[in-house]
Amino acid sequence: MAAEIVNPRSDSENRDASEQGGGAAPLESFDPAFALHRGGKMAVQATVPVRDKDDLSLAYTPGVAKVCSAIAEQPELVHDYTWKSSVVAVVTDGTAVLGLGDIGPEASLPVMEGKAILFKQFGGVDAVPLALNCTDVDEIVETVVRLAPSFGGVNLEDISAPRCFEIERRLQERLDIPVFHDDQHGTAVVTLAALRNAARLSGRPLGDLRAVISGAGAAGVAIAKMLVEAGIGDVAVADRKGVVSRDREDLTPIKAELASFTNKAGISGTLESALAGADVFIGVSGGTVPEPAVASMAEGAFVFAMANPTPEVHPEVAAKYAAVVATGRSDFPNQINNVLAFPGIFAGALQVRASRITEGMKLAAAEALASVVGDDLAADYVIPSPFDERVAPAVTAAVAAAARAEGVARR
Amino acid sequence: MAAEIVNPRSDSENRDASEQGGGAAPLESFDPAFALHRGGKMAVQATVPVRDKDDLSLAYTPGVAKVCSAIAEQPELVHDYTWKSSVVAVVTDGTAVLGLGDIGPEASLPVMEGKAILFKQFGGVDAVPLALNCTDVDEIVETVVRLAPSFGGVNLEDISAPRCFEIERRLQERLDIPVFHDDQHGTAVVTLAALRNAARLSGRPLGDLRAVISGAGAAGVAIAKMLVEAGIGDVAVADRKGVVSRDREDLTPIKAELASFTNKAGISGTLESALAGADVFIGVSGGTVPEPAVASMAEGAFVFAMANPTPEVHPEVAAKYAAVVATGRSDFPNQINNVLAFPGIFAGALQVRASRITEGMKLAAAEALASVVGDDLAADYVIPSPFDERVAPAVTAAVAAAARAEGVARR
Repeated sequence: MAAEIVNPRSDSENRDASEQGGGAAPLESFDPAFALHRGGKMAVQATVPVRDKDDLSLAYTPGVAKVCSAIAEQPELVHDYTWKSSVVAVVTDGTAVLGLGDIGPEASLPVMEGKAILFKQFGGVDAVPLALNCTDVDEIVETVVRLAPSFGGVNLEDISAPRCFEIERRLQERLDIPVFHDDQHGTAVVTLAALRNAARLSGRPLGDLRAVISGAGAAGVAIAKMLVEAGIGDVAVADRKGVVSRDREDLTPIKAELASFTNKAGISGTLESALAGADVFIGVSGGTVPEPAVASMAEGAFVFAMANPTPEVHPEVAAKYAAVVATGRSDFPNQINNVLAFPGIFAGALQVRASRITEGMKLAAAEALASVVGDDLAADYVIPSPFDERVAPAVTAAVAAAARAEGVARR
Repeated sequence: MAAEIVNPRSDSENRDASEQGGGAAPLESFDPAFALHRGGKMAVQATVPVRDKDDLSLAYTPGVAKVCSAIAEQPELVHDYTWKSSVVAVVTDGTAVLGLGDIGPEASLPVMEGKAILFKQFGGVDAVPLALNCTDVDEIVETVVRLAPSFGGVNLEDISAPRCFEIERRLQERLDIPVFHDDQHGTAVVTLAALRNAARLSGRPLGDLRAVISGAGAAGVAIAKMLVEAGIGDVAVADRKGVVSRDREDLTPIKAELASFTNKAGISGTLESALAGADVFIGVSGGTVPEPAVASMAEGAFVFAMANPTPEVHPEVAAKYAAVVATGRSDFPNQINNVLAFPGIFAGALQVRASRITEGMKLAAAEALASVVGDDLAADYVIPSPFDERVAPAVTAAVAAAARAEGVARR
């Protein structure tokens, strides 16, 4: 699946770090990430030759005019004769970048470029980083709507909650291409896949499990929705003030909605108290969970402590009590990593020119991802490695099939 | 300069034309341009490896976070550690595409992709096509301003006059990266280069020449400005109603400004009457010039009939009267082709991180382009071929040097 790495930034060898100003050289001697990032991590390439007059007369004027005219007459031909259906906009406003928070559009670019190259390497999807210098919901929505003709899909990234929910909803209402906030849905898909396999390993149906999520931001809300759709027994979500429940009077509209379809048991109080007897812990908060709270969970519990770089509970501590432990880190088993989902999800959606990414497509992605583990299922292997080459094709095929089944495919 | 063509659209071989709908197969048998355009003409590539966990931890989390933090602290580092200073946005609203007019953003995409790959092949500049589905000046300006953090420059393309003038001016006022409307300035730079060489061939200084431009749109206005800056003796511009002169009462603000610095002789009347005794004809109108009007020009005239695909006067007819004939077509000598200018102009501007493209930089580009012809100067060789590999490096170096000289360079 991974494309060859070619044509590294052509002038990188000629650059003299001493010319760069801004303390570049010291930074590079300080950390290899800086040397790797010099000049950026991506480039554009032509996929057709422009070597002579004849090439130019086909790829550019006058030949290109016939292609333009054909699209003007039959708009759907834009998918056939441009890169539109191969390319995704990776859109951020830089307000919730990794754990760094609101660092602004320029400082978010290394993450967006990283995302773009992961799209390419893992899903064969072209992606363009677009970091916007506006944070107003209306402005972001209008800007992306105006950009949409050039793209086959929109991946929203690192936009802070609760704005991210409204931005995604309004964009999807206005656009006929998929709009997908990866921090929500990518995380939810991979979490569900891991949970499915953990449940399978334990021989327990999802409907028997009670889960507690720490964190009611983008990821927590999306995971809760997805677990409910997948048939979880019950799920409660805790924010900094405790468990989100219908009797709380301080809920934002998003959390009020969350309260309406979660926490059937009607529990309230602290995260710690909710964990007593719970079967599943899912941490997407960046907080910490004390060891006694983990110890109070049900026998054979699953602990997914996904905060990065510091899990809510150290995986070695969690392993003392839990049957399955997962984190967001690559240096422990069972890494919950979005790269397992978004490349294949978009590749599948683009392949069939889906107009949106439905709940059914996300559930299909989670099942396909879980199924890659197959008979190798074990406590330390409930989710495949990001470098497992079976993942993206499996997710792509499942998402494309689900899009057709749900009637959102256009080919 | 030209990069290798690699990694053609990976699924192109697997596509079955019969699946495509929209009459794709018939179009492709009808014209080879359609086959070439299938799947688009460009792709994104990673320039750093993402092959294993260690790669991922540098190019993405957790390593990328340090780079983000560094940029948040020292914003100018965005130029060092992202592709910002390598990548140009090719922005259009699809209102003036080639000779096709207002065909909309989707139908303009093949041209914008073509432009993007020419940027890459000829200037080593990454470029991203952004076709906007808005035509309001305020909306276009706001959209591009919001996008600017991700780009090192903005190439405006195929935006109709007179909106193109205001959009460019307002964007350049608000942004600290170059904004360049190629239909204006690219055309003007290449035209001036050809004119310089024609004048050199004839042994006549520019100051002795009287030029007549047919067409007062984006290209005509920009060429007129540039010829005046370069020291032309006089230049008159004709629109459909005749020569633009101060005594006309029907002038738009742009044409009134044009009248203020052109047509020192104060001529009025038709294009044909203005051509009597003129030394230079520059056609950027798409109209036609009757043979007697060409015959009425001064001895040893230069005729640049640049309308595409049908020159204002056929080059063989023009050659009966003119000492030098140029067109916009590749199948006649002396092709005035913007690709001679824009890749090098942006490459030079990006190399020194110029905040804008000044008149001095454009004049330097024209001189550098003209100088490539050198001692091979002849009536049928006043401008180099687009495939002359000396062109882009010469223009790049001249533009970078001029940017430094004019104080707009940031490195």
